[in-house]
Amino acid sequence: MTRIWNDPADFADEMTDGFAAANGRHVQRVTGGVVRATESPRGQVAVVVGGGSGHYPAFGGLVGQGLAHGAAMGNLFASPSAQQIQAVAKAADNGGGVLFAYGNYAGDVLNFDAAQEHLRAEGVPCATVAVTDDVSSAALEERHKRRGIAGDLAVFRIAAAAAEAGHDLDGVERLARLANERTRSFGVAFSGCTLPGADEPLFSVPEGRMAIGLGIHGEPGIGETDVPTADGLAELLVAKLLEEVPDGTAAAGARVVPILNGLGSLKYEELFVVYRRVAQLLEAAGIVIVDPHVGEYCTSFDMAGTSLTLFWLDQELEALWETPVDAPAYRRGSVNPAQLKAAKGNAAADADAVPEADEASREAAGVVRAALGVIAATIDANVDELGRIDAVAGDGDHGIGMQRGAKAALTAGTAVDAGAGTTLARAAAAWADKAGGTSGALWGVILSSVANRLGDNGKPTLADLTAGVADGAKGVMDYGKAEVGDKTLVDALVPFAEALQRNADAGADLPTAWKAAAEDAARAAKATADLLPRMGRARPHAEKSLGTPDPGAHSLALIATAIGELLEGRNDHA
Amino acid sequence: MTRIWNDPADFADEMTDGFAAANGRHVQRVTGGVVRATESPRGQVAVVVGGGSGHYPAFGGLVGQGLAHGAAMGNLFASPSAQQIQAVAKAADNGGGVLFAYGNYAGDVLNFDAAQEHLRAEGVPCATVAVTDDVSSAALEERHKRRGIAGDLAVFRIAAAAAEAGHDLDGVERLARLANERTRSFGVAFSGCTLPGADEPLFSVPEGRMAIGLGIHGEPGIGETDVPTADGLAELLVAKLLEEVPDGTAAAGARVVPILNGLGSLKYEELFVVYRRVAQLLEAAGIVIVDPHVGEYCTSFDMAGTSLTLFWLDQELEALWETPVDAPAYRRGSVNPAQLKAAKGNAAADADAVPEADEASREAAGVVRAALGVIAATIDANVDELGRIDAVAGDGDHGIGMQRGAKAALTAGTAVDAGAGTTLARAAAAWADKAGGTSGALWGVILSSVANRLGDNGKPTLADLTAGVADGAKGVMDYGKAEVGDKTLVDALVPFAEALQRNADAGADLPTAWKAAAEDAARAAKATADLLPRMGRARPHAEKSLGTPDPGAHSLALIATAIGELLEGRNDHA
Repeated sequence: MTRIWNDPADFADEMTDGFAAANGRHVQRVTGGVVRATESPRGQVAVVVGGGSGHYPAFGGLVGQGLAHGAAMGNLFASPSAQQIQAVAKAADNGGGVLFAYGNYAGDVLNFDAAQEHLRAEGVPCATVAVTDDVSSAALEERHKRRGIAGDLAVFRIAAAAAEAGHDLDGVERLARLANERTRSFGVAFSGCTLPGADEPLFSVPEGRMAIGLGIHGEPGIGETDVPTADGLAELLVAKLLEEVPDGTAAAGARVVPILNGLGSLKYEELFVVYRRVAQLLEAAGIVIVDPHVGEYCTSFDMAGTSLTLFWLDQELEALWETPVDAPAYRRGSVNPAQLKAAKGNAAADADAVPEADEASREAAGVVRAALGVIAATIDANVDELGRIDAVAGDGDHGIGMQRGAKAALTAGTAVDAGAGTTLARAAAAWADKAGGTSGALWGVILSSVANRLGDNGKPTLADLTAGVADGAKGVMDYGKAEVGDKTLVDALVPFAEALQRNADAGADLPTAWKAAAEDAARAAKATADLLPRMGRARPHAEKSLGTPDPGAHSLALIATAIGELLEGRNDHA
Repeated sequence: MTRIWNDPADFADEMTDGFAAANGRHVQRVTGGVVRATESPRGQVAVVVGGGSGHYPAFGGLVGQGLAHGAAMGNLFASPSAQQIQAVAKAADNGGGVLFAYGNYAGDVLNFDAAQEHLRAEGVPCATVAVTDDVSSAALEERHKRRGIAGDLAVFRIAAAAAEAGHDLDGVERLARLANERTRSFGVAFSGCTLPGADEPLFSVPEGRMAIGLGIHGEPGIGETDVPTADGLAELLVAKLLEEVPDGTAAAGARVVPILNGLGSLKYEELFVVYRRVAQLLEAAGIVIVDPHVGEYCTSFDMAGTSLTLFWLDQELEALWETPVDAPAYRRGSVNPAQLKAAKGNAAADADAVPEADEASREAAGVVRAALGVIAATIDANVDELGRIDAVAGDGDHGIGMQRGAKAALTAGTAVDAGAGTTLARAAAAWADKAGGTSGALWGVILSSVANRLGDNGKPTLADLTAGVADGAKGVMDYGKAEVGDKTLVDALVPFAEALQRNADAGADLPTAWKAAAEDAARAAKATADLLPRMGRARPHAEKSLGTPDPGAHSLALIATAIGELLEGRNDHA
């Protein structure tokens, strides 16, 4: 939904003013829209685009050297008037005539045609190419009825590149028409946008469902389905577009520019996940991918949706496609052309050799692996709860971060045939690497501190373990710069380490000392719930933070308790 | 909310793969993130940025010539691990040492510091600048505790430009630190994002409210307020940032790069409306605006919010700022530097001279103005209903489009002192221009057809009016390529024109003939509700389209009826 406006009636004008103010290097505000702020060669065909506003970068964001010469910017989702179009075209004209290019909508056709007639009557040569890339909006036999969506970009760029290359109006029109013939798009949507000041979205799609072929203003689609996976969506989009290869030729061997366009609030990260599969599918079909585009090129305010465009190049079009562009929202070509590197990557160095270990330590490594299994299982069983607790005061990903780390630690610890110290060290490194974030780094420190004391020779003693845990607590405090009372992992780790030491000094055996220490840790973790939230981590609604423990401290207590049970069980059977 | 993923646990990896696949011209995928795909000069300091994923263009989108040499890309909102950072830094290193730059968050500091220690131990010189631009996250005396948000861009760019300019590691660090000292940001939010697979958003802000100073992961803000106007928001952001001018110097005369950053679903159009006022306020404070940025530079998935960054240049920084950049999501510098045009604009030509008119026609112009007043009032009174009807089968803006047009027509008709024909012609032109879209163009045709028949001499006759309306109906059909039965304005306009003719032919006077015709138009408009919606205009849920008339036909009937009442009243008093 739109959040911010002054008087909704002034929105489009104020938007255009603000756009021009922000982009004075590229565009000049004129009656009806914007034109290039930079000089174009005398006699160059002027490419004038336009349409309703609300689709940025379309249309004003596409004005600049190498792209459009002017854009008529209508009201929100409403065609510009013939007067606006005429005024922009006159300001953009370089004496070489005007090529109008815009998406094929009834209101735009009406107004652009009227402007064209007026200009011709005044002696300005004009031609028009209405973009018809949306395959879902009419059958192939009725291509002229199809709507124009993100494929606009391909047609606009070719028209502009042709003008730049010195073609006359006929030549520019021919090439723009060819580009339109070879551009196909297909889109889906999950929700519509709400215009400034409106009470309701333009359309809605039921929760969990996805509209197929829906237009960028909510025009009718061809169906609805459950929301697929990202890969499923890629398959749907590619399959639909491969049904209609231009000229009926085969896809294999064709050179294609894919444009995966976000409509506003389906964001870049999601588009990249979808594109990953799109690229695989196109390559599997034998298509050569040229200059892929993944981003926002033609939006519909914050509508959630995406479309895939395939622009089927031929030799002439591909040469034009390389024309540099410098527009507010679209730039192509590098100022400092740089040499491409040879692909080399930095695959992790081969694992270091496994140090020698004696039989006793190898046996102890079995206990380490069992402990890693218990940790992974404990986190798995509590992942949702940990996420919930973290969501109160943090970003809610503590559970999945811990899960990622514990799983990686178990895998790494199981994969190596080594002594107890090396086994745990490998697990520690894997945890830190795969979990990332703060908790990943801190658990890496704890486990590697213990690993250093266990060593690879001899059966580890209770004293080794106690010293390792103490080292870990100290390491975490140094590393994380936190102290007891800061409501972090440290609040449970320090009491745990101290209790383990105290009970060991008092002569308790490992299971007994550990169990007592785990109980202290659990008590201390619980107490973090009674502390005020730390500045810098708490959420704006502070009262929500009271009553839930710190998730890091809670995780430590859960793990300590579970390992205590493992040790007790082992002792029973020893 | 996030809509599309495969396994949420794989999201970050698949996103990075897709990002690298889409941007092979700029980046190379390596363990831990991406590095430039292009060669950098041997010995150049490598700028390595990074952080959690979910903030695109930060961080991978900022890798390329003139910007970062590499980006460590962590899991969603989780710091990359020390291993990831180390691996990326090694792949990015050109033998000139590594400058780490990233937003100041606990997890990032932990992991980047650990990576730095390891690299130094291996003999790679390293330095670090953590970005601390968010003024809402700590007091000025505790600047080192502040978070890094969209100001990242300023610091990253200066660091990279300094490296490009040949500074050594100390020099790059000094300049990056200077940039950070002179960068301040302040943000607001309306809603939080929902991570892939999560059930709930990371945070929420009550409907109609705006959180002030909220961090990009939902960290605590400094307050909450009702959603302001766009201008009010601009005033809030600028006022807050002008409280803290670096060095305590005056703002007046300073040269500043403003960065108005969208967090994901507060879209470009809204940002431009806000920027319009930001620019006014900065200029009013005597600040010289340099290279304004309005767009998405550091997002938080589809979080709705924005931040304003002011980057206070000095001479050294401004020179570096002009360094060209060619990264996937950020480009600066033009390949074809073009001459800026002199500002000239295309202000609408001075109004043509008003044609001569006789007294009778000037008197009739008074009736035209009264009719324009009635039209504007009628549309005002029905604007919401018209919007609602249009929302069923169209995009819901018919009401506001008609309102814009009718208001402009009244203003233009009142501003001119002319005969009836010219008065109505001016009104027709203003309607078409200000309303735009299909209905604006068609009402322009109707009114100008009538105007042509009214002329500027003599009292217009019923025959003139009847002929004008008939011309209008024909013009609309030609122009809009619609026929009776297509469920458009034509469905009411044609019966209206025919009935007017029929009743006039039968000897009725103007008020009687008009009233009868208006009744026919109203009946015909109502009947459009019983027609099936036209393909190409209907909404996906077709059943909703039944039972509501076409908004264009309905508008015409409303206007015809209201003018009928005006004429009748005039007659009563005649």
